Amino acid sequence: MLRPGQVLRTVAEDCFSGAVLTPDDLPSKVCELFNPVVGPFYVQGAEPGDTLAVHLLALDPARDWGMSATFPHFGALTATRTTAMLHPPLQERVWQYDIDRHASVVRYHARRSDYTVELPLDPMLGTVGVAPAGGEVRSTIVPDAHGGNLDVPELRAGTTLYLGVNVPGALLAFGDGHARQGQGEVCGVGVECAMRVTLAVDLIKHVPTPWPRIETDHQLMSIGAARPLEDAYRISQHDLVTWVAELTGLDLLDAYQLVSQAGRAAPGNVCDPLYTMHAAIDTAILRGATVYGGVHRRLRALAGAMW
Amino acid sequence: MLRPGQVLRTVAEDCFSGAVLTPDDLPSKVCELFNPVVGPFYVQGAEPGDTLAVHLLALDPARDWGMSATFPHFGALTATRTTAMLHPPLQERVWQYDIDRHASVVRYHARRSDYTVELPLDPMLGTVGVAPAGGEVRSTIVPDAHGGNLDVPELRAGTTLYLGVNVPGALLAFGDGHARQGQGEVCGVGVECAMRVTLAVDLIKHVPTPWPRIETDHQLMSIGAARPLEDAYRISQHDLVTWVAELTGLDLLDAYQLVSQAGRAAPGNVCDPLYTMHAAIDTAILRGATVYGGVHRRLRALAGAMW
Amino acid sequence: MLRPGQVLRTVAEDCFSGAVLTPDDLPSKVCELFNPVVGPFYVQGAEPGDTLAVHLLALDPARDWGMSATFPHFGALTATRTTAMLHPPLQERVWQYDIDRHASVVRYHARRSDYTVELPLDPMLGTVGVAPAGGEVRSTIVPDAHGGNLDVPELRAGTTLYLGVNVPGALLAFGDGHARQGQGEVCGVGVECAMRVTLAVDLIKHVPTPWPRIETDHQLMSIGAARPLEDAYRISQHDLVTWVAELTGLDLLDAYQLVSQAGRAAPGNVCDPLYTMHAAIDTAILRGATVYGGVHRRLRALAGAMW
Amino acid sequence: MLRPGQVLRTVAEDCFSGAVLTPDDLPSKVCELFNPVVGPFYVQGAEPGDTLAVHLLALDPARDWGMSATFPHFGALTATRTTAMLHPPLQERVWQYDIDRHASVVRYHARRSDYTVELPLDPMLGTVGVAPAGGEVRSTIVPDAHGGNLDVPELRAGTTLYLGVNVPGALLAFGDGHARQGQGEVCGVGVECAMRVTLAVDLIKHVPTPWPRIETDHQLMSIGAARPLEDAYRISQHDLVTWVAELTGLDLLDAYQLVSQAGRAAPGNVCDPLYTMHAAIDTAILRGATVYGGVHRRLRALAGAMW
Repeated sequence: MLRPGQVLRTVAEDCFSGAVLTPDDLPSKVCELFNPVVGPFYVQGAEPGDTLAVHLLALDPARDWGMSATFPHFGALTATRTTAMLHPPLQERVWQYDIDRHASVVRYHARRSDYTVELPLDPMLGTVGVAPAGGEVRSTIVPDAHGGNLDVPELRAGTTLYLGVNVPGALLAFGDGHARQGQGEVCGVGVECAMRVTLAVDLIKHVPTPWPRIETDHQLMSIGAARPLEDAYRISQHDLVTWVAELTGLDLLDAYQLVSQAGRAAPGNVCDPLYTMHAAIDTAILRGATVYGGVHRRLRALAGAMW
Repeated sequence: MLRPGQVLRTVAEDCFSGAVLTPDDLPSKVCELFNPVVGPFYVQGAEPGDTLAVHLLALDPARDWGMSATFPHFGALTATRTTAMLHPPLQERVWQYDIDRHASVVRYHARRSDYTVELPLDPMLGTVGVAPAGGEVRSTIVPDAHGGNLDVPELRAGTTLYLGVNVPGALLAFGDGHARQGQGEVCGVGVECAMRVTLAVDLIKHVPTPWPRIETDHQLMSIGAARPLEDAYRISQHDLVTWVAELTGLDLLDAYQLVSQAGRAAPGNVCDPLYTMHAAIDTAILRGATVYGGVHRRLRALAGAMW
Repeated sequence: MLRPGQVLRTVAEDCFSGAVLTPDDLPSKVCELFNPVVGPFYVQGAEPGDTLAVHLLALDPARDWGMSATFPHFGALTATRTTAMLHPPLQERVWQYDIDRHASVVRYHARRSDYTVELPLDPMLGTVGVAPAGGEVRSTIVPDAHGGNLDVPELRAGTTLYLGVNVPGALLAFGDGHARQGQGEVCGVGVECAMRVTLAVDLIKHVPTPWPRIETDHQLMSIGAARPLEDAYRISQHDLVTWVAELTGLDLLDAYQLVSQAGRAAPGNVCDPLYTMHAAIDTAILRGATVYGGVHRRLRALAGAMW
Repeated sequence: MLRPGQVLRTVAEDCFSGAVLTPDDLPSKVCELFNPVVGPFYVQGAEPGDTLAVHLLALDPARDWGMSATFPHFGALTATRTTAMLHPPLQERVWQYDIDRHASVVRYHARRSDYTVELPLDPMLGTVGVAPAGGEVRSTIVPDAHGGNLDVPELRAGTTLYLGVNVPGALLAFGDGHARQGQGEVCGVGVECAMRVTLAVDLIKHVPTPWPRIETDHQLMSIGAARPLEDAYRISQHDLVTWVAELTGLDLLDAYQLVSQAGRAAPGNVCDPLYTMHAAIDTAILRGATVYGGVHRRLRALAGAMW
């Protein structure tokens, strides 16, 4: 059980349950369980209609390597189970990345040539969620209104994720660390790595949150999860527009106009059962509006107190 | 007629043909022509199978104000002619922005309250295209493989747009200046303003380009245009993956993997007849690969020579 | 518990749990539970990897009236929670139909005029499903590979539905009777009525079924459930093509060609969390191929024995 | 030039321009022009805002064989130019059908086995269109509001197609005969055959038609063309609902409800640049409403007079 305000430190295993150890370990052969999560944690006092704030204080790769792969019939540029086609699957192939925390890079190695290149280390959690609404139980591979496998690279250390609570105790779970991923996660897999996670939770009582939201020091984001991708865009923009209207007192069309010119948008994943996109706006544009009672700043201060 | 290497200076009228002069001028009442373009220009020597490079040396708003609007049944958060629904249209409303070139801001004014806020000035061209393939003639509102109404905010001064040539002379046309727009252009309209355009064209002979591509000083982008939005994502990522493979010698799956971790993606528009997304990668990751014979750097140098 | 071969007679309440009794009873006001189902039933001997055959012997409306409605933000021609828009909801309105079993008609009455017209009575079950795979628990409003809220009007008396078994006992449940519905169920609601259901179950051991399939006396159908709608089409056609290849010995492209010319297709629902489409082919074209060991004919014979 | 009321007899070549003569003639090798059409014909007196009625009196295959094929990256179960993927293309293969007009069948022959089967002969025109609106020129492969490559198997002899007129003279063109096709035309190609076409045209002055509509002796249909497929569904259902409201005096939601229970729907094509679906309702349900001044019955009577 977690208490509001409590800090939790743990290690989350990678999406392959740690079973892919070399480029010769094909996930379809060696993995028994995909996308394991830590949890669920019962959050004391959480009730349906509340909002759970999950602040990521630190994300540190737990190993000095990460793995990625192509999977048969999974990813954006391949036929899949639902975008069903008559093509044979693409080759299943594994890539091993070096993770250098001191240099803050991950190193890519081609499999069919000696090409190698360094990319910025940018740790994130692919999966953070609570129990879904309506008594449903969903696979950890699914992103939706309850969070889950959002695969949004903006979910970095220093951010607070807001999730609506659907059941008593909220039942928080998380995992699927990526040393980094591209926007859209086009092949379906990030640089998967076991992750040391330090997070703090808090509760905003009696304030519902319809879709996952992220707060950073300088911006607000709404996340939509749907297919087709334009619906993920619509959900995220709609949530941001209505949120901006509420925060600024703007009428709905005035907020629509402001977000139309000031908003940013990007895909999280275009491969999971539901696709995700985020809509973002700088808080400066909202003239310093405070959201959820300032919980992000309070939790953010914990980081300063700890290190 | 334009010669390769030639610099062109002109002014492009806004998407309202300059007919919206105050917030009381509803586009549906005052506009006879939407999205006028400058051109078409016959580019000397351009033949089908070549690539036209269009380098934007400078984009400067031609007036100290811009206009935006909601249109009946146009935009991402409204029923449209094709996402047909039984709702009455949202209100048609116009917003006037101040454009302050010295402070480099555009100033938003709410219509139903006294809320006002400054956003960064970020001039772009919504529409740059050549004649389509296959003898087609398309409205200037349409983005597709020939360019057209891409509405991609990354099409700023300092960038080079590559378009495949489909007809002798290419027939370049452009317009639809925005003082800025959000990613996805959610309400369907940017901060529309007449734009002083300085551009240079060049030709890469016998090199085809399947979809619009953008080069900046530090990155390469591919643009897809399609519905649903995931197909715009697929096209742009597929073009970038195959382009990266060609530039680096990586095999196709190795390039797929690299773009999966290093790639960026964002929507241009989610409102036009076809939606657009771009896929981007830093050229540093490609170890300094030169594309299209280095034409971007040569055209970029023109800017230094002129100012 | 049900034994293979066993016949079950029961009554399934309507999707409003019987709470909508007059056109003045708005579902959003009077309903506490939507889409209740009868079950789940444990089917003796059913194991993952088997196929459950559910044969509908008879479907008879249990009342002489049925109800339909428009719901706020539900249906194909309205903004919804995921096709999120800024429109206010359409009006919530209820229609009461007379059901005349002797004349075999349902009678529509307009609410804003005295227009009335008779439509053929065509009873069906909207929801028939087993427990989903992977330990998931889904709302009864969801159609997917496990069946569920398929809302396919072809699920009439005289048909056999094949569902892959995911958990021991299969856990069959059903409900959501419609006196009839249009293809696509465009407003999101059929002519909802409590239904007397007579069905028989059987098991095909060690034969998996990837997506729901229907057999009638003269045709085979595959059902896909997905968004966007083309993916529901792709799934259903892909399943039918591979099934035809298996039944006829045709190679995959030969089967693709045959289905391309001989196949039928129609939407079930275009309103639920996943859309459904069926793909159908006449068994005569397959030169009398027998599927699932002829279980449909054996179960069909039960009907003759009973009446 | 055609006069309203005039009957035209002609032969339309097949979509391969007649160049595929045996199963060894791969379209990508032997075809210079795809989907040729007869026309355009200037219809005397047709003005923008009118409706052109095209009544198909007779469709007779002009040869005793037809051809079908799989194309690289074309069709619903394959990666395409816009649903871009990394798979190599499926094999290009040609099938030759026997067309037996006396027995009213087409005979399928497998290519990799000796499987052969007869299917009902059901001649239709894939492409019937007028000049598009807004000065556009579109490829004959494109279906849209102007008609074009609708690929709707319901476009048989005995039906009247209504198309809105966009330019003086309408500019009617047609072709792409199919001896039959499945619903959705899943592989992208029907049983293509040169077709003897007998049609009559008429004009309904000052009556616009927003999307293609079909009238048969007993039903009305609206056709939508869009991607994703749900938008083709939405367009067709929306057009049918508003049309029914206009014909019956029902208010919009009452018409929505009636179509929800009485409407039929099916895909035409799920492979062309825009997908098509039709929405249909029996005229009996509309209590004998007469549309477009009864032009269908008058043109239908021509058939009786001619044979």
